[in-house]
Amino acid sequence: MTKLTLTSLLLLLPLIFIVLTSAPPTIASEAATKGYSKSIPRFLGKFAYPNRGKPFQYETRYFEQRLDHFSIADLPKFRQRYLISTRHWTGPDRMGPIFLYCGNEGDIEWFAANTGFVWDMAPRFGAMVLFPEHRYYGESMPYGSRDKAYANAASLSYLTAEQALADFAVLVTNLKRNLSAEGCPVVLFGGSYGGMLAAWMRLKYPHIAIGALASSAPILQFEDIVPPETFYDIVSNNFKRESISCFDTIKKSWDVLISEGQKNDGLKQLTKAFRLCRDLKRTEDLYDWLDSAYSFLAMVNYPYPSDFLMPLPGHPIKEVCRKMDSCPEGTSVLERIFEGVSVYYNYTGKVECFQLDDDPHGMDGWNWQACTEMVMPMASSRESSMFPTYDYNYSSFQEECWKDFSVKPRPTWITTEFGGHEFKTTLKVFGSNIIFSNGLLDPWSGGSVLQNISETVVALVTEEGAHHIDLRSSTAEDPDWLVEQRAFEVKLIKGWIEDYHQKRNSVFSI
Amino acid sequence: MTKLTLTSLLLLLPLIFIVLTSAPPTIASEAATKGYSKSIPRFLGKFAYPNRGKPFQYETRYFEQRLDHFSIADLPKFRQRYLISTRHWTGPDRMGPIFLYCGNEGDIEWFAANTGFVWDMAPRFGAMVLFPEHRYYGESMPYGSRDKAYANAASLSYLTAEQALADFAVLVTNLKRNLSAEGCPVVLFGGSYGGMLAAWMRLKYPHIAIGALASSAPILQFEDIVPPETFYDIVSNNFKRESISCFDTIKKSWDVLISEGQKNDGLKQLTKAFRLCRDLKRTEDLYDWLDSAYSFLAMVNYPYPSDFLMPLPGHPIKEVCRKMDSCPEGTSVLERIFEGVSVYYNYTGKVECFQLDDDPHGMDGWNWQACTEMVMPMASSRESSMFPTYDYNYSSFQEECWKDFSVKPRPTWITTEFGGHEFKTTLKVFGSNIIFSNGLLDPWSGGSVLQNISETVVALVTEEGAHHIDLRSSTAEDPDWLVEQRAFEVKLIKGWIEDYHQKRNSVFSI
Repeated sequence: MTKLTLTSLLLLLPLIFIVLTSAPPTIASEAATKGYSKSIPRFLGKFAYPNRGKPFQYETRYFEQRLDHFSIADLPKFRQRYLISTRHWTGPDRMGPIFLYCGNEGDIEWFAANTGFVWDMAPRFGAMVLFPEHRYYGESMPYGSRDKAYANAASLSYLTAEQALADFAVLVTNLKRNLSAEGCPVVLFGGSYGGMLAAWMRLKYPHIAIGALASSAPILQFEDIVPPETFYDIVSNNFKRESISCFDTIKKSWDVLISEGQKNDGLKQLTKAFRLCRDLKRTEDLYDWLDSAYSFLAMVNYPYPSDFLMPLPGHPIKEVCRKMDSCPEGTSVLERIFEGVSVYYNYTGKVECFQLDDDPHGMDGWNWQACTEMVMPMASSRESSMFPTYDYNYSSFQEECWKDFSVKPRPTWITTEFGGHEFKTTLKVFGSNIIFSNGLLDPWSGGSVLQNISETVVALVTEEGAHHIDLRSSTAEDPDWLVEQRAFEVKLIKGWIEDYHQKRNSVFSI
Repeated sequence: MTKLTLTSLLLLLPLIFIVLTSAPPTIASEAATKGYSKSIPRFLGKFAYPNRGKPFQYETRYFEQRLDHFSIADLPKFRQRYLISTRHWTGPDRMGPIFLYCGNEGDIEWFAANTGFVWDMAPRFGAMVLFPEHRYYGESMPYGSRDKAYANAASLSYLTAEQALADFAVLVTNLKRNLSAEGCPVVLFGGSYGGMLAAWMRLKYPHIAIGALASSAPILQFEDIVPPETFYDIVSNNFKRESISCFDTIKKSWDVLISEGQKNDGLKQLTKAFRLCRDLKRTEDLYDWLDSAYSFLAMVNYPYPSDFLMPLPGHPIKEVCRKMDSCPEGTSVLERIFEGVSVYYNYTGKVECFQLDDDPHGMDGWNWQACTEMVMPMASSRESSMFPTYDYNYSSFQEECWKDFSVKPRPTWITTEFGGHEFKTTLKVFGSNIIFSNGLLDPWSGGSVLQNISETVVALVTEEGAHHIDLRSSTAEDPDWLVEQRAFEVKLIKGWIEDYHQKRNSVFSI
């Protein structure tokens, strides 16, 4: 009876929607051009926030923030929600550290529930745990309500990364002052877009935070810093490394899909073949559904069974390909595809039909961000990608954004404000105490930092890791490399804190 | 026939108006309490911008900027003026550096004319010279005109330091891209508030600029980082070190002034005694006039004759004190005071009468900045200051700002955004390639960085230096220490550039 929707899936993995948002406006594949056009999915649609319980103990508090930190405009203040636990904190006298998770594009309770690593570490470090929510998400709504905050481009215009960082900076500075805890070191954490925020905050506010663990943070996925094909190439490689025939089946399937869709009764046949709850209206809706499944699968291509939102086996892509490849001879391409994606959308076998539609009227915060600051060029290469070939086309992207939000993207702003070009030189010379952790199966890893930059700006790369798995609670099933990765992160963070105390003492004793 | 006004003096030395803006709301001196209340002077009044000619060759260009870089709000763009000279630039192929002066609170042509050091160095370095104007000053007016930009708190609300830095960042990034000069290193310069901007820009945009010479930049003059008495104590010490009796005369004079002013015909007598062009209306106007003279004198207490705006002898405070002390016995306190300040206001002897009034209707940009972000606590100590004693009173300051601009100051914002507390630890660990140059006679030096922080964040302190003299063109009269100071600055800047090329090459050759 369970109906799975695209939206509920989109919640799962921050940043996946970027792929879709920045998705192919032009398609080179001949058949594909006929049936495909970009659609902008939403992150927090109306079904998007399941109540996942509250596995960790914290208090929920609110802090009044300026809407625009960088102007003096007399705008209405808003209440930022933050979760706080001082349960294990050793307090100001013993300089107990503060672990601050940089809330990203979603309800902060969800991030708190899924960032067990921070909670696991807190007792060992005697740390306060702080999860401030990102403005315009969850309960942290300007103008008093989500509807008013998301009313139009004017009301949305303060939804930017710099404002979010300033929120964190003002909040933690104020909190420390009130607790006479000015000397307590702050360590930043973040995954995905939250990881980007953590890294940027360490660079922009080094006086506030002594270091950052930026997990799966594609801070280089802008302009031409990495090739736009990177993301889909990595997704494709996830499949290719399991099975060439699986890769080929998927690569072939797009044209088949188009030609099926164009037949008389084609959409009806596709509706039936893919067990959709409602009649398929456009073949491209099915495209999106499949595209999402493959990209998600790559992100959660974890080496052990996971239950991030829906249950999946360990090495889920291996399982998808096994299913596709093991169909009896004569099975059609689309039948194979259906068998494969069912691993993702219906591993329990309980889903009776699939729901492709999403809340059609909502405006999503990340889509806004992707249309303004977070302009991440995406393309799909003819050779190495299993997706329909397409080039990055900024003009079409810009048009879509204008249509959706009446807004003009700022494609070069992020690198102007935070850097990115020649990042090796810059980070080497200026940055310190940042861990960029990435799993190479994660399609976002290609836009992150994969090489050590200096002694203190380090890349932790795991071959078998996927999207920010290190931030999750440790479990009995963790493979050795994950246990080691987390242990190394703990060691580095411990080093930052010791170093902080040492440098502080040496300065004060002068 | 020359009539000197307070406004024209205020132009002289950036930052002096802060003293006055943040000036004593409460006065402990018994007599003084009766006659004194804070007044807010203006920086760029109507007589404030004399045409100083154009001693250096440059082109004037304009660049379209966003009004709010940190939101997506659809605000009218504005034209930022910038001066550019590529005359000596060796160009992109030879990686010619770009010298960027961070325009501060005034017309950029005036800063260009008075920052000869940058122009002098350019040929030696094969550097491009860039003087972008600070928004809301000179010709760089949002909303099309000064009147519209300065209309009210709403129109002024984008006059902030962070926005100005983002203007510089966007401009130079764009310029470099258009010239295919992405690899050319940018070196920042700035004096006074411009020096603060240069230091902050190096900290916030290390990917854009490789180093900063921050001359006379009181980045620590916020909150309780330095004692609020610092500024006036240094002014007072300038006088005390020349002559105790001079110091005592001035210290005594405030009460005398008050009691004279309270007499029948007192204001008339003061008008006559101080040769004012118009009848004195309130004793406090004379206070301001004298206070300004002393503070300015300390800032331009240069060791050689200068003609910054008005001609002054070398060691002008020595001369002031000589005049005061050499009056015949029996000369009254106020007569001595008049003799003394005449050195400042009338060294040529050509002034027939003194004009205290300023353009009464103008709103000044710096006053706005001082009432919003640049909240610099100022006090005058009972013992070591020659000024009337007063404590820093934030409430009164806040009230004044509300009265003047309908705005509430943000006294903790600057340190949240740019740091300041525990700056030694922070700058040591994170900063690099910043020169904080200060002359100890400059009252602003007390709010700046006077100790080396690390190998690359260095303090150049000159005992006999005053307000950012190092930024001026070299002259035949320069004392040895000034010649050496500039040579050392050149050496350090050269080092930054070499280091940049070396690190860049080593990264690219990996």
